Amino acid sequence: MFEKEMIIWAKHLYPLCRSITGKGTRKTLSFFEKINPEFKRKKYRSGTKVFDWEIPNEWNIEDAYIQHSTGKKFAEFKKNNLHIVGYSEPINKYISKEKLLKKIYSLKNQPSFIPYVTSYYNKDWGFCMSENDKKKLPRGKYKIVIKSSLKKGFLELSDCILKGKSKKEIFFSSYICHPSMANNELSGPVLVNALIKYVKKFYKKRRYTYRFVLLPETIGSITYLSRFHKVLKQNMLAGFNLSCVGDEKNYTQVFTPNEKTIADSALYSSLIGKKNVRNLSFKYRGSDERQYCSPLINLPVTAFYRSKYFNEYHTNKDDFKLVTAKGLGESFEVIKNIIDTFEEGIFTKNIIKCEPFMSKRKLYRNLSKKDLYDEKSQNTRMNLIAFSDGKRNIFEIAKELNVPLSKILKEYKLLKKFKILK
Amino acid sequence: MFEKEMIIWAKHLYPLCRSITGKGTRKTLSFFEKINPEFKRKKYRSGTKVFDWEIPNEWNIEDAYIQHSTGKKFAEFKKNNLHIVGYSEPINKYISKEKLLKKIYSLKNQPSFIPYVTSYYNKDWGFCMSENDKKKLPRGKYKIVIKSSLKKGFLELSDCILKGKSKKEIFFSSYICHPSMANNELSGPVLVNALIKYVKKFYKKRRYTYRFVLLPETIGSITYLSRFHKVLKQNMLAGFNLSCVGDEKNYTQVFTPNEKTIADSALYSSLIGKKNVRNLSFKYRGSDERQYCSPLINLPVTAFYRSKYFNEYHTNKDDFKLVTAKGLGESFEVIKNIIDTFEEGIFTKNIIKCEPFMSKRKLYRNLSKKDLYDEKSQNTRMNLIAFSDGKRNIFEIAKELNVPLSKILKEYKLLKKFKILK
Amino acid sequence: MFEKEMIIWAKHLYPLCRSITGKGTRKTLSFFEKINPEFKRKKYRSGTKVFDWEIPNEWNIEDAYIQHSTGKKFAEFKKNNLHIVGYSEPINKYISKEKLLKKIYSLKNQPSFIPYVTSYYNKDWGFCMSENDKKKLPRGKYKIVIKSSLKKGFLELSDCILKGKSKKEIFFSSYICHPSMANNELSGPVLVNALIKYVKKFYKKRRYTYRFVLLPETIGSITYLSRFHKVLKQNMLAGFNLSCVGDEKNYTQVFTPNEKTIADSALYSSLIGKKNVRNLSFKYRGSDERQYCSPLINLPVTAFYRSKYFNEYHTNKDDFKLVTAKGLGESFEVIKNIIDTFEEGIFTKNIIKCEPFMSKRKLYRNLSKKDLYDEKSQNTRMNLIAFSDGKRNIFEIAKELNVPLSKILKEYKLLKKFKILK
Repeated sequence: MFEKEMIIWAKHLYPLCRSITGKGTRKTLSFFEKINPEFKRKKYRSGTKVFDWEIPNEWNIEDAYIQHSTGKKFAEFKKNNLHIVGYSEPINKYISKEKLLKKIYSLKNQPSFIPYVTSYYNKDWGFCMSENDKKKLPRGKYKIVIKSSLKKGFLELSDCILKGKSKKEIFFSSYICHPSMANNELSGPVLVNALIKYVKKFYKKRRYTYRFVLLPETIGSITYLSRFHKVLKQNMLAGFNLSCVGDEKNYTQVFTPNEKTIADSALYSSLIGKKNVRNLSFKYRGSDERQYCSPLINLPVTAFYRSKYFNEYHTNKDDFKLVTAKGLGESFEVIKNIIDTFEEGIFTKNIIKCEPFMSKRKLYRNLSKKDLYDEKSQNTRMNLIAFSDGKRNIFEIAKELNVPLSKILKEYKLLKKFKILK
Repeated sequence: MFEKEMIIWAKHLYPLCRSITGKGTRKTLSFFEKINPEFKRKKYRSGTKVFDWEIPNEWNIEDAYIQHSTGKKFAEFKKNNLHIVGYSEPINKYISKEKLLKKIYSLKNQPSFIPYVTSYYNKDWGFCMSENDKKKLPRGKYKIVIKSSLKKGFLELSDCILKGKSKKEIFFSSYICHPSMANNELSGPVLVNALIKYVKKFYKKRRYTYRFVLLPETIGSITYLSRFHKVLKQNMLAGFNLSCVGDEKNYTQVFTPNEKTIADSALYSSLIGKKNVRNLSFKYRGSDERQYCSPLINLPVTAFYRSKYFNEYHTNKDDFKLVTAKGLGESFEVIKNIIDTFEEGIFTKNIIKCEPFMSKRKLYRNLSKKDLYDEKSQNTRMNLIAFSDGKRNIFEIAKELNVPLSKILKEYKLLKKFKILK
Repeated sequence: MFEKEMIIWAKHLYPLCRSITGKGTRKTLSFFEKINPEFKRKKYRSGTKVFDWEIPNEWNIEDAYIQHSTGKKFAEFKKNNLHIVGYSEPINKYISKEKLLKKIYSLKNQPSFIPYVTSYYNKDWGFCMSENDKKKLPRGKYKIVIKSSLKKGFLELSDCILKGKSKKEIFFSSYICHPSMANNELSGPVLVNALIKYVKKFYKKRRYTYRFVLLPETIGSITYLSRFHKVLKQNMLAGFNLSCVGDEKNYTQVFTPNEKTIADSALYSSLIGKKNVRNLSFKYRGSDERQYCSPLINLPVTAFYRSKYFNEYHTNKDDFKLVTAKGLGESFEVIKNIIDTFEEGIFTKNIIKCEPFMSKRKLYRNLSKKDLYDEKSQNTRMNLIAFSDGKRNIFEIAKELNVPLSKILKEYKLLKKFKILK
């Protein structure tokens, strides 16, 4: 579902030079706000204190390159926006090759990759090149041109709240501060937007309230929490941070420090039966779950990644060879199953004492025959009844039975219809 | 203990055609009621509502066979009562071989075995044959004769309560609804009767009350629970469902969904040190534990099987090659150790502060010598004292120490005698 | 730290004939009381009831040997005090070689080792020899001479309390009842004395109170508990029994029966990253933790050993080939790290909401570069913040992160200094 839309959106946004502030990020938010007009933009002025942090100046960049005395240009921003260190201050001067080399970042182990480097909070500048290209730089003097600006402005983010019968919220977060890289991080924002479209279309009368936020990583989530921590704490039933969800390799979950929240078991159960699943301790956190689960914030936000440690990470090779419609679609299904379960109801209970008389409802074989005995879906059905003890929720039952959430959900719907579970 | 009696009883009852109702079951109950006159019969009329179920009509059968136009008979009920599908309706008609074959059940993977098939709740009829015999059926017309009746009558069961000082009950259940098969299920009922004899003989002044029930599987336990759930819930300290306990192969426990009841640890500890023990999740439940542990019933009943999945299961090969006096005797010992422990008292506590002075009671070596240091029974003795912290019961201590319950019990008796534990 | 002092003390004390009472033990206590004058001697009269036990007569010995009719002496006490069974009664008589052999203990599997044997509570006598020497005893008559005395006297022990701001105590115990053996048990007492010197020198203003006790094993700790159980129960935050801590082989922890006390996680975390660590259940207890953790005493005392089961155990080969300054020093570090952590404070909490802005404090790289990403100490720093949730103490966080306590402590100090943690 929504594979095509997601990949089209991502490819459209790919060329923009996003950062934690600036025009690229603003355009990205505007794009999504057209897709889902329920988004509401929030703006926070440079210099605003947010907990221990301060919102930095707004950074914008027009052009940047290195020019050899012969006139030949290198590391051209207009060819690839990774060439410029994020938040580089404006500069226009001549320097020797020797001095220049100290300001060019490259990866010795991945000599054909351009790395992604930033320096948000320490005034600096620099360029990024592949190790191979860096080595080929001719001798001589160079002109350094960075047409950027660092001025008072705004940090911007957008949230979209879809109200349900209950004030209790299901929360999703992803970030929009990375320049031309696909998995990290256009995959998360496009998945968020597909989920919004899904919830609007299929759950017009919603059981729960849904909150989706798109923000710059770290400083954005800290800013958001500094404003909305109280309401999030009161209402959040389960939260999911979405990052690097566009490749086809692994399925990765980072647990909350508690490891037993509803969010933890929800994502865990939705990954049962997938190939290459890794369920990691909070030690291996990486993205905004760092803020949502920090000790004095303590929200039940688990993190969903496909490949968490991938070769192309933070380089120009994180592109649409890695991120595919199929990968995004598979990730959508993982979250869709969770949403479907929340909307069906996760707190299951038996209505009938003892095993129900399944045969009279045509829910069980009539003939007790040995070779039918292990029929699988029937087993899942009876197991779901047997473990619906009012203590375990649907996600926990799936986990205990080691049956994919989607199968459990199918049986649960059937058993509710037949007034066996409620 | 009681091996000989058990095997004699089982062989005597083997030929009867039992089902969930009817004369075979009634005779089986009467037989046990002579052995243990404390049993009290309970009768429930056909059509009575029991939770989600309804007690079916009583089924009785006199004869059944298939007769070829040449006069030759096949699948003769009088030769083996497994030949007839349980609860077959009466019939007397001619049909073609083609049509007949659709009503004959056999096992392709076990071509020499006659399977056991029932159709309690869907009016039907059928025969069971070995695949080999089915293949040899000659061409032509057949006469089908089933001299059975399905009429208003009674479902019957019997319970035996041996009162103790405490109202708290130790509960045992097995079932008497299977025709000529030995392990599943004559082994359970004969073990129940041996246990009754044991408790009456060796525990005339009982600490606990014991309740033993023999009933048809599923519908019988549901009926019993519909009448006695409240009192069982109030009083049951631990319960054990006994099924397929006559072979010599494995020892199998199915835990309750909670996995930590007194019953769970009791059976677990009594199986320590046996060969081929399997302790299974409630996912692998099979018999009346399905009812006793269902969410709204929620009784602490663990299930004890020897081999749970055996080749001969639900076929005519489940006979006295599989079930032996030795097998039954071994199963008796497993439960005997549990009963002995309950009667000795399971809530152990230290009387003395610090380690007791064992030597003055001659309970410890006098000489502290290196090569005596690891002497085993002494280790168990000291460990039992060390872990009797008032939180762990005897079964849990045995589990933690990984020492067979019988050895722990022996030490416990000694230490009580010497006023070290109470 | 203190390696040299410890090994000198141990070697000085090695020749003395210690037992659970008597002059050797008294001299040993006096020696330590000179090193740490805060020790206070306690004396308990023979015949005093202590819980289930009674303080035995005081045993002193001057000389003992076996003399062949030719005049040749064997098993001479003056050459090695292990030759005499501890608490041997006085004797002076002639016996046949046959009878004598029954009173000589040796080890068939370790034929060149003299074993250590005692008979505290059963009046007896005996000699210990190597199996090899025992075999070489010439035929003929023997004179048996044991110049010992068993008279009313005292059991003596010494405790040292260093008061801190809090009444809460950190407790250490070791024992001084073994004759000429080095690991078991001079290593524990010398470590105790080094720890006292360390606490006095480096923590003049202490957060916690420290209690150190040196006593005869079993009867000594029982006596001490019979007098001080109440105050220990009220105040003990964590306790450590120190035994066999002088070799260089393993690191062994015996958990309390609870396994989750502060003491348990303290020692566990301080052993992370060491080679050959074994964390054992209370089933494998061996020394005075048997008393401290007995059910009605129930103090949080974990036991620290280096090699718990070593070849030289309870023989004359337990000497200074086994026990080294290096081994003692390593053991000191293990406990030092625990003390340092207690004094720094173990109940850590975040001060700042969300992740702190580390860069402005120069606690984090400024440049976000891919190849710096996994830098280890930074990881530990951020993990310590992330897991300081007010529920886990420092020891538990170290355990969860699987990072040695010393590294965690270093980061903790830094983060407190920067007002990130408290």
